[in-house]
Amino acid sequence: MSHDHGEILAANEAFYAAFRRGDADAMDAIWAQRAEVACVHPGATPLHGREAVMESWEQILGGPPPIQCVNPRVHQLGDAAFVICGERVPGGALVATNVFVSEDGAWRMVHHHAGPGVPPQADEMN
Amino acid sequence: MSHDHGEILAANEAFYAAFRRGDADAMDAIWAQRAEVACVHPGATPLHGREAVMESWEQILGGPPPIQCVNPRVHQLGDAAFVICGERVPGGALVATNVFVSEDGAWRMVHHHAGPGVPPQADEMN
Repeated sequence: MSHDHGEILAANEAFYAAFRRGDADAMDAIWAQRAEVACVHPGATPLHGREAVMESWEQILGGPPPIQCVNPRVHQLGDAAFVICGERVPGGALVATNVFVSEDGAWRMVHHHAGPGVPPQADEMN
Repeated sequence: MSHDHGEILAANEAFYAAFRRGDADAMDAIWAQRAEVACVHPGATPLHGREAVMESWEQILGGPPPIQCVNPRVHQLGDAAFVICGERVPGGALVATNVFVSEDGAWRMVHHHAGPGVPPQADEMN
């Protein structure tokens, strides 16, 4: 695994840790500051822009689920990257695409899209 | 709209045109040649790698739906970009995240993730 892949996976895991803890400050710090962010929550309409996306997280983080990231896999595209992973929540499973961008030496989230799906198997991990 | 945004939107529309036509050759040409591709079809497990992704399209394109892309919006990250759009199909609607990478001067698809959702409104377009 490359150095970048390790850092991208760490950023992805930090997102899920903030999600589980209901930690709005940590969630805010995880998202990009300059790149325009977006988010598609399960079954919802797309949100664009930091204000709309962070408002949605404030609501969700008021009652956070014990969400677990399952078998994330990194695809790096230079200073951008996307991670595909499963999400296990009580009573169900989702699949997510999480897009990251390198800003100020850190990998920050710029897009999260989660919806129904079958989490990837462990042998598909990188 | 920047020159790049126009080209990225054109690549996104070319994907939906190939999808509607059931055109496997056009679909093959739309996907990246060097970057590792991935795909999450609605409700399915993630696919990684060109062989798995193109096999999935060959099956789907045998009976293509009259799919329409609704209100695409581009987020560019240097030589990578993602487009969020609605998808209208008979009897339903989806939301998709399509990731592109610049390869050999062309914007090529590197990831498609579609699932249930509420298509974006026209006033959210860029």
